[in-house]
Amino acid sequence: MKSIDYILSNKQRYLDELFELLRIPSVSADKKFSGDIRKAAEFIRDKFNEAGVDSVEIHETDGNPVVYAEKILDKTLPTVLVYGHYDVQPADPYELWDSPPFEPVIKDDRIYARGACDDKGQMYMHVKAFEAMIKHDELPCNVKFMIEGEEEVGSEHLGDFVKANKEKLAADVILVSDTSILSNDCPSITVGLRGLSYIEVEVTGPNRDLHSGIYGGAVGNPINTLCDMVSQLIDDKGHITVPGFYDKVQDLSEADRAAMAKAPFDIEMYKKELDIDDVKGEEGFSTLERVGIRPTLDVNGIWGGYIGEGAKTVLPSKAYAKISCRLVPNQDHEEITELVARHLEKIAPKHVKVKVTPLHGGQAAVIPTDSKGYRAASQAFEKAWGKTPIPMRDGGSIPIVGLFQDVLGLDSILLGFGLDQDAIHSPNESYGVFNYMKGIETITWFYQFFAKK
Amino acid sequence: MKSIDYILSNKQRYLDELFELLRIPSVSADKKFSGDIRKAAEFIRDKFNEAGVDSVEIHETDGNPVVYAEKILDKTLPTVLVYGHYDVQPADPYELWDSPPFEPVIKDDRIYARGACDDKGQMYMHVKAFEAMIKHDELPCNVKFMIEGEEEVGSEHLGDFVKANKEKLAADVILVSDTSILSNDCPSITVGLRGLSYIEVEVTGPNRDLHSGIYGGAVGNPINTLCDMVSQLIDDKGHITVPGFYDKVQDLSEADRAAMAKAPFDIEMYKKELDIDDVKGEEGFSTLERVGIRPTLDVNGIWGGYIGEGAKTVLPSKAYAKISCRLVPNQDHEEITELVARHLEKIAPKHVKVKVTPLHGGQAAVIPTDSKGYRAASQAFEKAWGKTPIPMRDGGSIPIVGLFQDVLGLDSILLGFGLDQDAIHSPNESYGVFNYMKGIETITWFYQFFAKK
Repeated sequence: MKSIDYILSNKQRYLDELFELLRIPSVSADKKFSGDIRKAAEFIRDKFNEAGVDSVEIHETDGNPVVYAEKILDKTLPTVLVYGHYDVQPADPYELWDSPPFEPVIKDDRIYARGACDDKGQMYMHVKAFEAMIKHDELPCNVKFMIEGEEEVGSEHLGDFVKANKEKLAADVILVSDTSILSNDCPSITVGLRGLSYIEVEVTGPNRDLHSGIYGGAVGNPINTLCDMVSQLIDDKGHITVPGFYDKVQDLSEADRAAMAKAPFDIEMYKKELDIDDVKGEEGFSTLERVGIRPTLDVNGIWGGYIGEGAKTVLPSKAYAKISCRLVPNQDHEEITELVARHLEKIAPKHVKVKVTPLHGGQAAVIPTDSKGYRAASQAFEKAWGKTPIPMRDGGSIPIVGLFQDVLGLDSILLGFGLDQDAIHSPNESYGVFNYMKGIETITWFYQFFAKK
Repeated sequence: MKSIDYILSNKQRYLDELFELLRIPSVSADKKFSGDIRKAAEFIRDKFNEAGVDSVEIHETDGNPVVYAEKILDKTLPTVLVYGHYDVQPADPYELWDSPPFEPVIKDDRIYARGACDDKGQMYMHVKAFEAMIKHDELPCNVKFMIEGEEEVGSEHLGDFVKANKEKLAADVILVSDTSILSNDCPSITVGLRGLSYIEVEVTGPNRDLHSGIYGGAVGNPINTLCDMVSQLIDDKGHITVPGFYDKVQDLSEADRAAMAKAPFDIEMYKKELDIDDVKGEEGFSTLERVGIRPTLDVNGIWGGYIGEGAKTVLPSKAYAKISCRLVPNQDHEEITELVARHLEKIAPKHVKVKVTPLHGGQAAVIPTDSKGYRAASQAFEKAWGKTPIPMRDGGSIPIVGLFQDVLGLDSILLGFGLDQDAIHSPNESYGVFNYMKGIETITWFYQFFAKK
């Protein structure tokens, strides 16, 4: 295929353009980067124009804008809707990065930068695959692109956009590259995603910071109390204690569990790579099941009192925690958020006041493997990688996948090319140059197979 | 007494000089203020010279310097050793101050600034009382001043200084103004102080921050684990669960408890002033007992994971807590630090690593009320306030009081004039102008009574 040769011969330019995008700190969780959010959206718009779309526009929302582009060859042909996001996770703690998060560098054939994989690198592969096919008249079907800027904060306003543009977004399949494969030797396709419920908890004790000597022992300490409350959320068997939390969780059949167990997984390697002496999770489930088919509760952040250098004997007025639950199919994120919030209020002792603020959420999703889209993705891997990909359930959440199923009635094909070692959401996020280039090839092949009669 | 008239007529200058001192941000817990530590020490030295001491010097230590001054009238006369500190607590969170912490202002006859009471205000009263007595030849005995700069971080290097200067520091009594009275209508003298054991705990899970979707549920979260550990330190009766923690705690006699119960205390006012619906503490003890005669454990600070704006789905590598225990007589702070550290290591689950770092500590102390020093202090209050002070046990810690008993064999008279409402260690720390001036008078009277044959 001419497109493939073109992709290989344009490697350096394809990398240079991605680096340009990675230099824009489009962090959606922190308002101080809103100018860069805009710059990133405009960069994508310009690249779509250069690549040869019919039209591209920056759609304003009540939050960050959505970049929409399309190329309609013939209304009778099938249509692929590509979804991706140009926003990234916060880069802090900055001091843990070996090189500045927004000054991309290549080391050992890996691109190091915030967003290198999640999702700038994976999203931009679609722009370049499209360019290659257009240049050689090898685009076999219609394509629409919807690139948002709020995925890392829960796609708060994408729902409104999708609901308001059902006609415009009409398609036969949705293609998303925002997930990982098991390894470069063992490619996989994600067929399950967890939902998310994310809240912030504020615990208030006395109305001001107190001297821990004069009041200590007599006034409830909001940090100790927050710890007590968090500790009660998970029992010693690793079960989440929030009443009703598991009510809608489906138990997998023994057959399904056996199938999952076939995935190559080395627990010792896993522990070694993370430098932990033991894993920790819900009793009665394997590590792959714990991240794949079971809901979880994690404190993502906690703070209160004096956290500076040295010692300060303060009994603080307030303590805070950010707590999120990963959800499985049928658990409704709004219902879970409500259950967790009410439970925290219920277990709060009388000596404190508790305030729970929902920060965001999304539904879990399962993607059928017997669809035309999945088969095309599987064939694309076979062609580009010479291997048949394994269907995998991923622990992560892409809230919009559930949204697309609900509003557009479309399944998403999760054609992701990341690796665990990419350390997305962590310092020193990276993405393999091999995965970037091979991903562009695979996407190009996907169109060919999907458009086949 | 001429000195008293002089004090009253120099009120404005005495306030102006204190304001100068309060403008120096001599925070000992944060190295970035070390230049201001120096400036504060030099300010004190100069004021001692102006006040008329024989000699004053800034003694270097391995930490912050000690300002030592003396006025020896006659070796046969009794000698008073005055202790105070020129360092202050950190002022953060700055945003909670109504006026900048290091720009003192007077509102409603109260001085608002970090250190206004603790201890710049109370320490400086001694300099001014001394000046007044010198000016009118009314100093009736020898006096030595030892003003340190590390009290708020545990007086780490004062011990070396005291041990190395036993001769120089020889005295008949130690006078310290770093405590509070019950109220201006009901003055009191602190006769008991709690000790302190202060540690920092670091809990490490995986070797890097992880994506909570990909690893959540399968890898132990160090924040959740830290919460579990903290929660185990105190049981549901408010007892500290560290083995051996209470072994050396003395139970007070029913008579002593009855005497304590006589102190005027309104629990409803207490709750109202702190805006709490309930107090919280060890079962079987009153609020005054909980802060006066019982040891405590408080988390003074906690942090880990993402604490910025918005939501970040991180499973962090590390979580931290600053934990301190207030100790009662006979509890050795080094032994307690050891017990707490070993216990934390013992209850740490296999999926995390725990590191405990002692930050500082000090011994508890009880001051006898039948001493010449205590009687002089009591008489000074009667003279200046027209009321006999109540002997009180205070929950705070002044580690050096225990040190002085051990090394110099001297009791400290805690002639403090603060009030609860001074909010020391908190935003908007303040000190009553009345207490500042009345304190200078009381100190002046103390010398007269103490020197009496």
